[in-house]
Amino acid sequence: MSYFPAELIKKKRAGRTHDRRELEFLVNGFVAGDIPDYQMAAWLMAVYFNGMTGPETVDLTSVMLRSGRVLDFSSLGRPAVDKHSTGGVGDKTSLILAPLVAAAGVPVPMIAGRGLGHTGGTLDKLEAIPGFRIGLSLDEFKKQVDSFGAAIIGQTAEICPADKRIYALRDVTATVESQPLICASIMSKKLAEGIDGLVLDVKHGSGAFMKTVEQADELATKLMGIGASHGKKVAALLTRMDEPLGRFIGNAVEVGECVAILKNEPYLGRAPSEFADTTELTLELAGAMIWLGGGAPTLEAGRATASGLLTSGEAWEAFAALCRRQGGDLDRLPVPTARVEVKARASGYVAAFDAEKIGLAAIALGGGRLKTTDTIDPVAGIETHRKLGDGIREGETLFTLLGSSSSGFAQAEAMLSSATTISLQKPVVPSLITRRKVP
Amino acid sequence: MSYFPAELIKKKRAGRTHDRRELEFLVNGFVAGDIPDYQMAAWLMAVYFNGMTGPETVDLTSVMLRSGRVLDFSSLGRPAVDKHSTGGVGDKTSLILAPLVAAAGVPVPMIAGRGLGHTGGTLDKLEAIPGFRIGLSLDEFKKQVDSFGAAIIGQTAEICPADKRIYALRDVTATVESQPLICASIMSKKLAEGIDGLVLDVKHGSGAFMKTVEQADELATKLMGIGASHGKKVAALLTRMDEPLGRFIGNAVEVGECVAILKNEPYLGRAPSEFADTTELTLELAGAMIWLGGGAPTLEAGRATASGLLTSGEAWEAFAALCRRQGGDLDRLPVPTARVEVKARASGYVAAFDAEKIGLAAIALGGGRLKTTDTIDPVAGIETHRKLGDGIREGETLFTLLGSSSSGFAQAEAMLSSATTISLQKPVVPSLITRRKVP
Repeated sequence: MSYFPAELIKKKRAGRTHDRRELEFLVNGFVAGDIPDYQMAAWLMAVYFNGMTGPETVDLTSVMLRSGRVLDFSSLGRPAVDKHSTGGVGDKTSLILAPLVAAAGVPVPMIAGRGLGHTGGTLDKLEAIPGFRIGLSLDEFKKQVDSFGAAIIGQTAEICPADKRIYALRDVTATVESQPLICASIMSKKLAEGIDGLVLDVKHGSGAFMKTVEQADELATKLMGIGASHGKKVAALLTRMDEPLGRFIGNAVEVGECVAILKNEPYLGRAPSEFADTTELTLELAGAMIWLGGGAPTLEAGRATASGLLTSGEAWEAFAALCRRQGGDLDRLPVPTARVEVKARASGYVAAFDAEKIGLAAIALGGGRLKTTDTIDPVAGIETHRKLGDGIREGETLFTLLGSSSSGFAQAEAMLSSATTISLQKPVVPSLITRRKVP
Repeated sequence: MSYFPAELIKKKRAGRTHDRRELEFLVNGFVAGDIPDYQMAAWLMAVYFNGMTGPETVDLTSVMLRSGRVLDFSSLGRPAVDKHSTGGVGDKTSLILAPLVAAAGVPVPMIAGRGLGHTGGTLDKLEAIPGFRIGLSLDEFKKQVDSFGAAIIGQTAEICPADKRIYALRDVTATVESQPLICASIMSKKLAEGIDGLVLDVKHGSGAFMKTVEQADELATKLMGIGASHGKKVAALLTRMDEPLGRFIGNAVEVGECVAILKNEPYLGRAPSEFADTTELTLELAGAMIWLGGGAPTLEAGRATASGLLTSGEAWEAFAALCRRQGGDLDRLPVPTARVEVKARASGYVAAFDAEKIGLAAIALGGGRLKTTDTIDPVAGIETHRKLGDGIREGETLFTLLGSSSSGFAQAEAMLSSATTISLQKPVVPSLITRRKVP
């Protein structure tokens, strides 16, 4: 089937709906180089303005998914699952989830991403572990999932090449912020992992891309719909991202926080109980994954299983084994050598965090990238001394800036100076998990 | 001044207004190859959706104008003028206007275009005259205007290269139909001619791009505003294009109709009085041009001057001289050798023409191009036997198809079969000139 690309652009420009063949023509033609990037760019902008219907987004996802290799874990004889987070600050749950859920007997083939904007990325965190190989081939990846139950790697050229090319174009044509394009991009990559179940952590608040619960709920519903249309079980947790998760933001320090939770021991002077929110979210997500993967009869039972594996030390052993298998040496995890404290300028209660600003401050320290060519200081990051609702007195420490040198400290300090709202009234802090949406 | 292109796309995407520097950065960067076509395409689509303010369109026009050479006729010591038509079917007025207005002492440096969609183009018509050179260099063009008073050529690479590149991109990215982009494209090219005055023929109706008077008026107002902002006198006539102008549609046959009007003699059996609408519109436009060029104190006086030059034969002499100067041999103007008559299928009055369909039928005969690589049969075209409001009986001839062979006749005949509405009631036919807008 052949079309005139300009006619298809005009169709979307007029707000009309593409059928699957038209989307195949556009996406496959673009990947093959038959449709030039300027026509794709104009079409993407028309999609930005006029959106896509639900079935149209499902079709786009399928077409992008089929542009590359789709893994298959059916030989394992049990459902494989994964998790996707819409991105937050200090969100390190994936690192624990993959080995923990695998320890419950549910395979986790996890293809993870890098930091995007102010949010961190699982790959950057894993690379802070000396020797950790995120670049396994798809065959090595599949073999490790088959034999060990979990593996975490980065995107490869064989998975959803259409998404890779379209995303690169969206990035430079101001067409990233389009919900159907976001949905198709997320879901095509996750479906290509060969999973049967997916748990979504859809974040909302000052550090999330979705600022309101309503936006997060809408996105979750759309993503779940796409998954269901592809015969997958998808659950979603809507979770608060109005403060950094846990105590540490960065790469090596987030790995350190995970190890502390897994081994139930302190990290940089902080007791594991101080990482209660990271632990809670991880167990909740793990519970849902274990449940969707058939490792427990209910979400609650899944959570209990996850909690037991954490307490027993089995989750730690699985994590340590995963690192070893992928070449990572946890004993050589680097520690920050430079630090500066940022003090509170007023007394009261922490009523709000601008979590996005805190994420950007961590990037300014070298803990992330603003552009792909930036290099990362693995030990750079931020420690938060207060959670929402905590009391603080003027002159007490709010944040500690961490790094291998103090370069970037002044800029980050300036950014953090306006990242906290201190009020005299103690705020009511809602539950970390706002809503559970199950298939 | 440097910007991030993606940020400028995002700005327009959000409906915000560019300043002149931003437009310079975008347009000049695109022409220089620093801004890739995919970013320009996304920006153009954002402009399609969010439009541009009046001042923004003026700035865009200036930037495009300054991307190439701008002619200067100030050494002539009197204002140069030109005409622009938004495009119609059978519209051959430019061919007469350039020599006629020059004969009134007002210089006309006319850079004309080719057919676009269902509408004809002055260049295609001139090329039907054996030997006519539309490809004079800009220096030859300027010399002929200086010495003779008029010249008609095609676009050159030196005039508005930004428009050329942007138009080519719009054509393949479904971003042609954007009023600010249309306005900037028209006016930048006309202003580059070095004119002091411009008369716009803004057409409305079934054969025009603007279907309603209101749309035509809005476009005229915007174009006049851009001209005024550049210190030019711009007048506009809103004219009916709900039937083909004159009796002939095509290339050689339109030249033939012009010669008949200029020499006051029949053409292919039709008396010059049967070309009354072509003559009326030409004299009205010429009157406005002569007035704007300072050749007459009022539009009415300009029209009287034009009428006198036509009657005296001076306009014919100027036309013949123009053709000679540019190498054209009118004695060898080809004539159609194949013809087929299309009959009326009902009796009554011609109540409506689908002029766009008639224009497309002329293209099907070989009288125009659907794509730039199509070749033109110079004698192909259509003769109309009735004007709006005329009576006709079933079986009488409505159209004659003309060409050098009968290829395409069947297709054109099928198209024409539904291009006319015949009703029992005699319709009221409004005046050809709907509105006059003067600076």
